[in-house]
Amino acid sequence: MKIAMLSPLSWRTPPRHYGPWENVVSLLTEQLVAMGIDVTLFATGDSITGGQLAWVCERPYSEDSSIDPKAWECLHISEVFERAGEFDLIHNQFDFLPLTYSGFITTPVVTTIHGFSSPAILPVYRKYNKKTYYVAISESDQCPELDYIATIHHGIDLAQFRYREEASDYLLFFGRIHHDKGVHEAIEVARRTGLRLVIAGIVQDEAYFREKVEPHIDGSSVEYIGSVGPEKRQEVLGGALALLHLIHFDEPFGLSVVESMACGTPVIAFGRGSMPEIIRDGRTGFLVEDVDAAVQAVGRIDKINRRHCRDEVEERFTSRRMAEEYLAVYRKILDDRENHRPWGRYENLLERDDHKIKEIIVNPGGRLSLQKHQRRAEHWTLVSGEAMVTVGATESLLKPGQSVDIPRGAVHRIMNPGDIPLVLVEVQMGDYFGEDDIIRLEDDYGRD
Amino acid sequence: MKIAMLSPLSWRTPPRHYGPWENVVSLLTEQLVAMGIDVTLFATGDSITGGQLAWVCERPYSEDSSIDPKAWECLHISEVFERAGEFDLIHNQFDFLPLTYSGFITTPVVTTIHGFSSPAILPVYRKYNKKTYYVAISESDQCPELDYIATIHHGIDLAQFRYREEASDYLLFFGRIHHDKGVHEAIEVARRTGLRLVIAGIVQDEAYFREKVEPHIDGSSVEYIGSVGPEKRQEVLGGALALLHLIHFDEPFGLSVVESMACGTPVIAFGRGSMPEIIRDGRTGFLVEDVDAAVQAVGRIDKINRRHCRDEVEERFTSRRMAEEYLAVYRKILDDRENHRPWGRYENLLERDDHKIKEIIVNPGGRLSLQKHQRRAEHWTLVSGEAMVTVGATESLLKPGQSVDIPRGAVHRIMNPGDIPLVLVEVQMGDYFGEDDIIRLEDDYGRD
Repeated sequence: MKIAMLSPLSWRTPPRHYGPWENVVSLLTEQLVAMGIDVTLFATGDSITGGQLAWVCERPYSEDSSIDPKAWECLHISEVFERAGEFDLIHNQFDFLPLTYSGFITTPVVTTIHGFSSPAILPVYRKYNKKTYYVAISESDQCPELDYIATIHHGIDLAQFRYREEASDYLLFFGRIHHDKGVHEAIEVARRTGLRLVIAGIVQDEAYFREKVEPHIDGSSVEYIGSVGPEKRQEVLGGALALLHLIHFDEPFGLSVVESMACGTPVIAFGRGSMPEIIRDGRTGFLVEDVDAAVQAVGRIDKINRRHCRDEVEERFTSRRMAEEYLAVYRKILDDRENHRPWGRYENLLERDDHKIKEIIVNPGGRLSLQKHQRRAEHWTLVSGEAMVTVGATESLLKPGQSVDIPRGAVHRIMNPGDIPLVLVEVQMGDYFGEDDIIRLEDDYGRD
Repeated sequence: MKIAMLSPLSWRTPPRHYGPWENVVSLLTEQLVAMGIDVTLFATGDSITGGQLAWVCERPYSEDSSIDPKAWECLHISEVFERAGEFDLIHNQFDFLPLTYSGFITTPVVTTIHGFSSPAILPVYRKYNKKTYYVAISESDQCPELDYIATIHHGIDLAQFRYREEASDYLLFFGRIHHDKGVHEAIEVARRTGLRLVIAGIVQDEAYFREKVEPHIDGSSVEYIGSVGPEKRQEVLGGALALLHLIHFDEPFGLSVVESMACGTPVIAFGRGSMPEIIRDGRTGFLVEDVDAAVQAVGRIDKINRRHCRDEVEERFTSRRMAEEYLAVYRKILDDRENHRPWGRYENLLERDDHKIKEIIVNPGGRLSLQKHQRRAEHWTLVSGEAMVTVGATESLLKPGQSVDIPRGAVHRIMNPGDIPLVLVEVQMGDYFGEDDIIRLEDDYGRD
């Protein structure tokens, strides 16, 4: 199975620090590669993977302002679609723009929806609803107007998060500095419980940081340590009494919540968005409704067994589990492809009012049903392999370059007696060419 | 000839007031329609055309902030490319994003480059340089790294611009209020010549307007009249002693310069960008280097014969001339298509290592050359019309559903003796399928 994995260009894959989508892409890619899947990662040129790396844009545009995001996004996306023929499946993890290229290729496209930045982008998802396969990252993030092939929670690499039995003495905020993420509320909870607060993450909203966060930073009761890389991350997460995740939006998934739990640190979160799917209230943390309840939850944090937090992640949130679920989705899609048959496969090359052309490939030993058509005659030309062909009462062996006519209404069948695939070109002539004009008289595969 | 004309979504086509790209798209579309060409205009749903209107986005995003530009741009662009099969040619007037969809279709794409907003978008133009046909809007705007099929200056609808023999008493600035356009310099020239200045146009740069323009507006010596629609436009342009076009960038084309001249109003412009291609120095205006020279030029403005300005536009800048030049480009592209032949045309459906499949259409009376191939055998199945087929010494008449083998090296020919197109499916078998493996022994069209 050859998979093209399409990552965003905002950050490196995997990201150096921040970059949640690129992080998930990397976790999935590396796990699939470890499981023996042939994955080509389409990402920035500085990305790192155990699979094949394919790139047109050298560096992430969030790290280099000379790179025009719009120009490079469309070059990056069109590249994977122009190479679609090399892959069995394209896995799009780059939002809605790639969907608009999916109508031109026959390779199936799976799209992980990492959240809807605004309802204004929904028209694109709606248009391609029937032409692509959507995966939600949580039940709560499913849009009722769309069809999903699966919901797959993100998973993490456990090796990057050491379990820690004993916490230190601080509460932790971990994420983007933005009103959505509730940094101010975390400060309030720390103040009221008299505990120290450590804040880690990139400043996404400068004004919010200046007004609501910065005035409280004193280096002791409230400390801001910036964005942290992988090694420091597990240290900061593992040492916390609890992660405060007092979000003001329906977060589609909370990677830091899972990472925290992997270190043994329970999470106190507002119970909205995906939080009830990730946190088990009273066992791996507390789902609360407001700051008052969060303050009370901090008082009960010693009731949580840190080992249970780790166990939960080992069971439900590993990248291995994530990769297995995606693999099941890929397999389901490939097995269900319209042009795949138990005996081999076919490709529609052209359809006009009065004729249609197909390339048909029959596996060694494969045999099509004994069948006839009411509204079309067929003409077969063998180009590779050998074909045992039945037309009416006549059976004949066809060699490459030989051809045979199947008149409208004639009972016919083809089988591959050889040990290489049989390839034939079928020209259908008539006034209707639907797959439902196949009257099966006998079939090896039990089809009607 | 069926043309798909792709317009931007920023404004209505034609624009209500401002919208230079949409304006040019409309001028070209309506002129082509008047000349009997079948044009489908892809634009906002409120657009107006004498051709067919096709739309997915109801209103212009610059007039409705609830419309997400990125989402609707890609829906709009993918729509025309998904419908490519309905058209002989797509004319893209919507910048670089459509180029990245052009690799998936066989319909040729002409792209008018309305200017490069930044060198950072050049990589997209560079990548598709060989796959699309670029038209420059002035010689000065040609990028040396790209190939162009033509340079076509914009043209205007003369009926919208009444010629006026006698000017009023003011100088005119007409365009976006932005440093690039030199509004401040126009104010300076007016002050130093003691003449009144009228300023018309949308405010594009608010800070520039507040600091450099607004303080000078007094309603008498400097008057700002906002953006003007078609009727007011010709009145304002026609009444001016001169249009001041003291630009600070290499403007790819100046539509307002041509519109001004159409009303008989000469133009005083900084001689950069496309200005030397549009203005004839000393005859239809003055090309100057700085504000001092512009002040002197105002003193000599009565040396310009206003009739010459109008004559110049009638001769060089009508939408009729523009449409004829685009039509010549369309014709050249369609005549040169790789798969078009004097006898008809063909379509490549599939090419593998050991076989290739073509659909071949021969016009009534058309006859292919007497030919042979060294590296492939062929098998023809007739699906429509009648075919007179020569293989070696044998000549036979083929009817739909009948087929014939052409062994490798056999001399063969096909002609259409009927009065409807002949359609056949050709299966080539061998190890090389290039068009250069055609050895022509005799040809009606004098080809080697």
